[in-house]
Amino acid sequence: MKRITAGMSAFACAVALTAGVAAAQGDKPVDGFLAKTTRPAPNREPVIDLPQDRAAAAAALGRARARFGRAPNIVMILVDDVGWSDIGVFGGGAAVGSPTPNLDRLAAGGLRLTSAYSQPSCTPTRAALLTGRLPVRSGLLRPYLPGENNAATGLNGEVTLAELLKKAGYATQAIGKWHLGGAEQAQPQNVGFDDYYGILTSSDDYTAWREPWRNPDLVNDPDRRAWAEKGETMGIVAGKTGAAATLAYPIDRDTIRFVDEKLTDRATQFIASRKNEKNPFFLYVGTRGAHFDNYPHPQVAGKSPGRYPYKDVIVELDHRVGQVVEALKASGQLDNTIVMIASDNGPMLETFPDTGTTPFRSGKGSIYEGGVRTPMIVSWPGVIAPGRVSDGLFDLMDVFATSLSLAGRADLVPTDRYIDSIDQTGFFLAPQGQSARRVEYYWVNNIFMGARVAEFKYLMHDQITESDDSWPRSSPFSAAYTTSVYGGKMFDLYIDPKEEHALAPLKQPQIPVVAAAVQAQLATFKAYPPKVPIR
Amino acid sequence: MKRITAGMSAFACAVALTAGVAAAQGDKPVDGFLAKTTRPAPNREPVIDLPQDRAAAAAALGRARARFGRAPNIVMILVDDVGWSDIGVFGGGAAVGSPTPNLDRLAAGGLRLTSAYSQPSCTPTRAALLTGRLPVRSGLLRPYLPGENNAATGLNGEVTLAELLKKAGYATQAIGKWHLGGAEQAQPQNVGFDDYYGILTSSDDYTAWREPWRNPDLVNDPDRRAWAEKGETMGIVAGKTGAAATLAYPIDRDTIRFVDEKLTDRATQFIASRKNEKNPFFLYVGTRGAHFDNYPHPQVAGKSPGRYPYKDVIVELDHRVGQVVEALKASGQLDNTIVMIASDNGPMLETFPDTGTTPFRSGKGSIYEGGVRTPMIVSWPGVIAPGRVSDGLFDLMDVFATSLSLAGRADLVPTDRYIDSIDQTGFFLAPQGQSARRVEYYWVNNIFMGARVAEFKYLMHDQITESDDSWPRSSPFSAAYTTSVYGGKMFDLYIDPKEEHALAPLKQPQIPVVAAAVQAQLATFKAYPPKVPIR
Repeated sequence: MKRITAGMSAFACAVALTAGVAAAQGDKPVDGFLAKTTRPAPNREPVIDLPQDRAAAAAALGRARARFGRAPNIVMILVDDVGWSDIGVFGGGAAVGSPTPNLDRLAAGGLRLTSAYSQPSCTPTRAALLTGRLPVRSGLLRPYLPGENNAATGLNGEVTLAELLKKAGYATQAIGKWHLGGAEQAQPQNVGFDDYYGILTSSDDYTAWREPWRNPDLVNDPDRRAWAEKGETMGIVAGKTGAAATLAYPIDRDTIRFVDEKLTDRATQFIASRKNEKNPFFLYVGTRGAHFDNYPHPQVAGKSPGRYPYKDVIVELDHRVGQVVEALKASGQLDNTIVMIASDNGPMLETFPDTGTTPFRSGKGSIYEGGVRTPMIVSWPGVIAPGRVSDGLFDLMDVFATSLSLAGRADLVPTDRYIDSIDQTGFFLAPQGQSARRVEYYWVNNIFMGARVAEFKYLMHDQITESDDSWPRSSPFSAAYTTSVYGGKMFDLYIDPKEEHALAPLKQPQIPVVAAAVQAQLATFKAYPPKVPIR
Repeated sequence: MKRITAGMSAFACAVALTAGVAAAQGDKPVDGFLAKTTRPAPNREPVIDLPQDRAAAAAALGRARARFGRAPNIVMILVDDVGWSDIGVFGGGAAVGSPTPNLDRLAAGGLRLTSAYSQPSCTPTRAALLTGRLPVRSGLLRPYLPGENNAATGLNGEVTLAELLKKAGYATQAIGKWHLGGAEQAQPQNVGFDDYYGILTSSDDYTAWREPWRNPDLVNDPDRRAWAEKGETMGIVAGKTGAAATLAYPIDRDTIRFVDEKLTDRATQFIASRKNEKNPFFLYVGTRGAHFDNYPHPQVAGKSPGRYPYKDVIVELDHRVGQVVEALKASGQLDNTIVMIASDNGPMLETFPDTGTTPFRSGKGSIYEGGVRTPMIVSWPGVIAPGRVSDGLFDLMDVFATSLSLAGRADLVPTDRYIDSIDQTGFFLAPQGQSARRVEYYWVNNIFMGARVAEFKYLMHDQITESDDSWPRSSPFSAAYTTSVYGGKMFDLYIDPKEEHALAPLKQPQIPVVAAAVQAQLATFKAYPPKVPIR
């Protein structure tokens, strides 16, 4: 046994490295299951206290500021309905007919998050990201449907990240998909962004009623078609703070093919224009792709290995991300810019074959991992260590408080309302930073479905689809019964990432831990009543 | 539209790069769907003709031989029942509680195959790899069960890769799991390997009958236990050509924890011993892990983020692979060694939670991708370009002919029997090499289930499980009905990697293409009758 003993420290060391252990907080990584949390303020989500990570992040920010003389630029790119494993470094890419070399390169040079979370659908995710608050608090529970968006007042009344970064001295630019209300006072340029160029609603709203294959009843009947046309937004709109955006590029079934190119052109022009500016910028880009229906750019159509519109569009999106990064590089701003890329929810399954892929159960609209586990890449060359991969919990809401910390203005986080967002600068910037988030919550509309602590996910409510309660072939986005679960459902996401085995009877000791986290969140609604009553 | 036109060539170029296009064969990657194939010999599987890849590979081999004065060493590591997405670069690792930094590093430095295939279970895969022939041709259709292995004559009568590499001047060493017959004349050291140190049968055969939790009926009854004990192999055996292997390390529920350490020690000792030898070597390693039941090494037990035996063992396996690579490096042999790593089949689902993960449908025993799509990494620093990822078809059988070509002795491929193996040196060694394999065949025992050409998979037969015909929660390894499919099932593996949507009605034009490949393979059995009749 001597040899075993002799080999022990080297092996233990390798195991420690393997587990992605940060030496900073001691010998072991922080275990979210056991971690103590503290509330930074009465209106803030509790955080795991990681003083060394915080100190390392502060030092890194200090060095960057000394070098560049200002806070970093912040670029947030949200791709639409893109699945976890559509991206190469998440196990997809070439394997599913859509190679993503630009995203893969970005991931290799920075931090890849394997447990980043969105809300189950578009509008709630975007609202949560920009307000740092759960949809039930802001009231934006579900995507606006065709005809609803134009009048919707969306984030009006909320405090947005753009508004606060503007206060912090940032130039703020929104480009692309909004879907957070189309009324003048809800448009991006009137809720914190200096300028907006993009589509106010969902991609399909511009084409679905024009598509004879999809809606022949509308297309083939002049009266119905006129009715549909009247309700719709007509294309890319543009505007500056203080006025309504106006039509800049009409979108139909032909021109929609060029939308992501036009959005990217605008983004790269904006980046180039910032080259000699003194103040940093916040660029928020929502792509058109790969939301159904996909009409790929003619230069890529049929050229991806998958040869399907969705696959072509993934290849195009990867190329567009590459163009944004290239623009940052070409203008000498890449080294002082943090780039975050994520998807707004899981792949939309009902539109097969115009759909993405996920290794998880279910898709868009679901609180199973396929609906909310978003691929996420964070890059800041020279500041975020390359090649990092972490399974630490991250919610897209955390972009809110994290960005304000990156801007050096954590003090701007609102105090008059509950903020679910957690400052994750330590996670991002410390060499082996760990997540300060202990709990991820699962919500559908105003139904509190469950929570995850460490690898344990506990559901009090479930979504049942017509065909199968385990692997829904009809997705829960448009056809799910939401119901409470007797005894709850418990999943161990490490041994059962597909959520096939409900383990509550075997995991009874762990249930109270997650249940306590659920109770703690419920308590916040007493002190800070949500805009919509909880069901 | 001027800008669009101007941007065209750069964009087309990016798309081409994105698709992993080899410039060598022209402007476009070879499309397996349309590719013409030729038969190198009447007894050989047809191949896609890729003259530039072949020439590039020959040049690379020539350079290596000029530098090292001999053919490369060949290391083949087969891990056991490890799932595709247990490995980080295949979308797992940290995300499923088992980080794999050594494998990830190896993949980043070489070629990662996303469409590599095994047979649905252990013995057939190993037989196919070492003989270059389908199990139905060699007669090794299914794993030997407890009590059968000791008497089984396995590969006896077949021509093995080890035997041929020995003829080519290689030192040949087998270590670890064999499971290709335990009779003296079937043991590795008597079918081509100079030396053997390993376990002749499956990991569970050493422990299942000793495990009171798993088989209390045997463990708790002295008579039944004596019966079980008599039928079993007792531990690691060792021997040299010409004799039966003898017991070297008894295995029970305690000592099994050290088996992979002992196998790796032997492998690294062998590698060190080759440092000053003139001739190259072939090292074939079959790990114990992560076959059920997993009893992790005490230094890793509970230390993986997943904290489950299976997860701990994946972390250990990753560490073991790192030790093998380190031994090659330390002895100065890494630069003239090709290392291939794959799993022998998909994860075993019936043993949950002692199971791996796959993003595909089903697991071990299945002809759905979850059963046969194996994670595979190929590394030869300085010769295989780093960072390559390819979705080209590769069958573990191809290791046979490829290895002989690497050894410079393609002439040794047998001419007296049908060889399914394809020489893939061009795929591996050309800077952007493409697969020479056009068709992957799916077999279960002696049932010809279907075939894949490009992204299209056509099944004439299907496996139905008790619980669900789509996402089997009871896996097909031990509980599937095999039945023919009226009209066949067609899947597009790019848009539907989970094989949820049978598309035959929509893909009728493509069916005859795959069906023709099936017919062509069937014709080979007329000229070269298989050992077992085809059902």
